Amino acid sequence: MTLASWNDGAARTAIVDFVDRVTEDGGADHVPPAERVAVLDNDGTLWCERPAYVQALFVLGRLREAAAARPELAEKPVVKALLAGDLAAAHELGVAAIAGVLLELDAGRTTEEFTSDAREWLAAAVHPRFRVPFRELTYAPMLELMELLRSRAFRVFIVTGGGVEFVRAVGEDLYGVAPDDVVGSAVQVGFERRDGRVVLVRKAEMLGSPNEGEPKAVNIQAHIGRRPIFAAGNSAGDREMLEYAHTGERPSLCLVIDHDDDEREYAYEGKAATDPDAESIVTTAGRLGWMVVSMRRDWNRVFAG
Amino acid sequence: MTLASWNDGAARTAIVDFVDRVTEDGGADHVPPAERVAVLDNDGTLWCERPAYVQALFVLGRLREAAAARPELAEKPVVKALLAGDLAAAHELGVAAIAGVLLELDAGRTTEEFTSDAREWLAAAVHPRFRVPFRELTYAPMLELMELLRSRAFRVFIVTGGGVEFVRAVGEDLYGVAPDDVVGSAVQVGFERRDGRVVLVRKAEMLGSPNEGEPKAVNIQAHIGRRPIFAAGNSAGDREMLEYAHTGERPSLCLVIDHDDDEREYAYEGKAATDPDAESIVTTAGRLGWMVVSMRRDWNRVFAG
Repeated sequence: MTLASWNDGAARTAIVDFVDRVTEDGGADHVPPAERVAVLDNDGTLWCERPAYVQALFVLGRLREAAAARPELAEKPVVKALLAGDLAAAHELGVAAIAGVLLELDAGRTTEEFTSDAREWLAAAVHPRFRVPFRELTYAPMLELMELLRSRAFRVFIVTGGGVEFVRAVGEDLYGVAPDDVVGSAVQVGFERRDGRVVLVRKAEMLGSPNEGEPKAVNIQAHIGRRPIFAAGNSAGDREMLEYAHTGERPSLCLVIDHDDDEREYAYEGKAATDPDAESIVTTAGRLGWMVVSMRRDWNRVFAG
Repeated sequence: MTLASWNDGAARTAIVDFVDRVTEDGGADHVPPAERVAVLDNDGTLWCERPAYVQALFVLGRLREAAAARPELAEKPVVKALLAGDLAAAHELGVAAIAGVLLELDAGRTTEEFTSDAREWLAAAVHPRFRVPFRELTYAPMLELMELLRSRAFRVFIVTGGGVEFVRAVGEDLYGVAPDDVVGSAVQVGFERRDGRVVLVRKAEMLGSPNEGEPKAVNIQAHIGRRPIFAAGNSAGDREMLEYAHTGERPSLCLVIDHDDDEREYAYEGKAATDPDAESIVTTAGRLGWMVVSMRRDWNRVFAG
């Protein structure tokens, strides 16, 4: 059944109604397939982001090895926090600090080597509380939603604050989203010829700002080139993306995932990693008329695994 | 018939053999659909780029209006050359100079307004020599090639030195390529709220370098995230993109269009707009073992219109 992991209720109804309305031939709100663009945040929207971003845990494993070999690295605050297992403290230091460490660790590696590293790590990584592989902690209701959208000729993009190369490395496998359909925070890469082969080599600098807040809307334009009509997120860092989708000339649906289920997952407010003072996205949603999805009430099943 | 506008010969055979080889189930050179990425340059590879880039002619029309209203604009060299109808001189001043003028003209306009402008212009614009709409001057053999690739589960991307927003505005219509499958030179856009709507507004600055040479390979990674196995181009600005495709671990095919047909189209060397001293791409192709497509000998029909 379509959206089988969704309980009957306002959220499920809003989704089904919206999809029907914009895809019904000859309907007043019909949107041509070329304009059916859906954008979804990743961490906390498509899979579990607690106790820390999955990518931060990937860094942790690599950090342990690197810090053992290079003591000066172990002195950095974010490195200390991560190596002490204090994931909350690392999270507090923000996406940029985590990304900075990641960048330094992987500078000099080719994009192809990085992709292999990320895949290899995710194949084995286990969640510290749920004791199952992270790859099983994608949200079943959101996978069903993506499938519904695709079945109605939407193109489904991930627009993540996480590293684009990390999410691409696993996005096809986790979500059926191809690498070119992932927009995220990016590092600079350099063009090199090594042993007669062209390779692209990661540098220790980001390409532009982290993909949170206004950059999410700007990067949707840079990569996708169309205003979305569907958007989903779970933090204040998704606000501008949802506003962009919401204020186009086409009908739109904006969903906000409310993490209010500390039994089956976690309960926490939808703040932004890059701007801790920003209003919770659930509050924004109430004010701007977006649909809030309560994990506790709207989902009869949380994880896909 | 597949590739009906291609004469029998080495180029046609190379294409058909390559596509069969990488798509044959169980073959030694089989490439999974997810990795069947094809990248094609636009100007001079998919449509006519003489006497000037189509986008430069779009600028010209807008310049005439703008220069009439703002005399200081008319003093710039590239503006003078374009307004004098000296398209060769404008071309000599390079992609960056042409882009600079374009950027200034369109700064402050939303991405959606720019897209409408470009579409409106192309709907009416006529080629000065052929006296037909520019939109009819796409190359029939290349449209057939793109169709063949798609029919074999390739994803087909345009990777252009031209402005990404200009090519996106017309790419779906001309080539069946969606906006998110176009990679090109880009301008910075800013996030603004106007009358309660989020809009993205063009600035007078480019985002990074023009998409020629090494940036083509780097931007393929930034936007597509996979190494291509098929690449086509016609100028020295495409060299690094072709080298990138050619030196992967998968089988690859690199095509270079040789403009050697001054009767049906134009005859000129495949130099780079941004680097006039670079070796002609046809010479590079001979040295590196890429397939040169002679417009005169390999194509029994040039234009799709």
